[in-house]
Amino acid sequence: MAVSQNIKVAVDAVVFGYTSKEGLSVLLIKRNIPPFKDAWALPGGLVGDLESLEDAIHRELKEETGISINYLEQLYSFGQPNRDPRNRVISITYYGLVKPDAFELHADTDAADVAWFNIKNIPQLAFDHAEIIQTAHDRLKNKIQYQPLGFELLEEKFPFSELEKLYTTVLDRPIDRRNFKKKITGFGFLEETKEKQQLTGAGRPGNLFRFNEEKYFRLKKDGITFEV
Amino acid sequence: MAVSQNIKVAVDAVVFGYTSKEGLSVLLIKRNIPPFKDAWALPGGLVGDLESLEDAIHRELKEETGISINYLEQLYSFGQPNRDPRNRVISITYYGLVKPDAFELHADTDAADVAWFNIKNIPQLAFDHAEIIQTAHDRLKNKIQYQPLGFELLEEKFPFSELEKLYTTVLDRPIDRRNFKKKITGFGFLEETKEKQQLTGAGRPGNLFRFNEEKYFRLKKDGITFEV
Repeated sequence: MAVSQNIKVAVDAVVFGYTSKEGLSVLLIKRNIPPFKDAWALPGGLVGDLESLEDAIHRELKEETGISINYLEQLYSFGQPNRDPRNRVISITYYGLVKPDAFELHADTDAADVAWFNIKNIPQLAFDHAEIIQTAHDRLKNKIQYQPLGFELLEEKFPFSELEKLYTTVLDRPIDRRNFKKKITGFGFLEETKEKQQLTGAGRPGNLFRFNEEKYFRLKKDGITFEV
Repeated sequence: MAVSQNIKVAVDAVVFGYTSKEGLSVLLIKRNIPPFKDAWALPGGLVGDLESLEDAIHRELKEETGISINYLEQLYSFGQPNRDPRNRVISITYYGLVKPDAFELHADTDAADVAWFNIKNIPQLAFDHAEIIQTAHDRLKNKIQYQPLGFELLEEKFPFSELEKLYTTVLDRPIDRRNFKKKITGFGFLEETKEKQQLTGAGRPGNLFRFNEEKYFRLKKDGITFEV
């Protein structure tokens, strides 16, 4: 390994947040160092010599945003030679989907600020971070076609319309509602309770649903085949 | 970017080969430098400061095995701190599936030899390369459930049994033949010709099939939902 190499390795995270009221959002930090000082960017930074990639991204998230998430998945490695104006930096990226209310944000180290931005309202970003978010969103849309979604994001009991809304929000398009209900209840990870939805307006209240935890996590592991 | 970092970046490729006679194989090189001198390993090497990750893996493949493949996909980045005994090296890996007959192998630079090994008969490998092959095989099995497979691997016209054999070989398990035929012909990327299969033994010869190129590549792009 005599070959000299002048490349640095960073990790960056696309943390998506979902609430039924606000929709899909992305966690961003405001840079307080150049380049792109004062621009918004994904949380992340250089990997320490002795830490694993996973430890590095968890440390960076904790340092720059104050949050701890232990179920990020690797997304893709971005390595175009000119993606950082200072030096060649390859970014190994991670992504995850969480409930924003569960986290208290706190900017520190390289971050002057930290905030959730709705995915339809992302500001101009540093580096190639807009492309990284696009790649993560595409992966997320794809992922919900082979893994169930919602356990960590919805209330314990929820009207079926809440699950529909989650899927249409993540997919960013309408779905065939009747077909969706038929298919998704067919997997068996949803249970219909006998409790009724509390309606604020008019209409006939439907039953509330809950996840069957055992089946949900088995299907998450084994995979589903689901075309919404 | 004052932070010093002592990490190198490599690319490695898992090139799968498929023939109906030999099944699924993996392209390996024999190392002629330490560590793991004389052990078999995946082709790959350090990324040049000015080349993209894709250019690096194509250059390494060309140098070490003599072959050119321009449709590799990124697989995963392996970054455990101790995976190389010399120095911290993160490997960004790629994978692809080709027809071995189309390539003439020629070992050079860091490789003393190069050969295809059947996936059921892989020798002891250098570094964490056995784990990388396992990850690539899992990804390949998953991929054929959302993309059609076979266009570059089978003859222009082929008996249906050849397509079945391709799927069972890649999946490494039996499939429900009747269900498979019904589902896969339903996508429309296969055309049944009027030509009959030449049978060497007894039995009723079936018609030959061919791919509808336009539909095949459209479905490859748009995705299929296929549970074998």
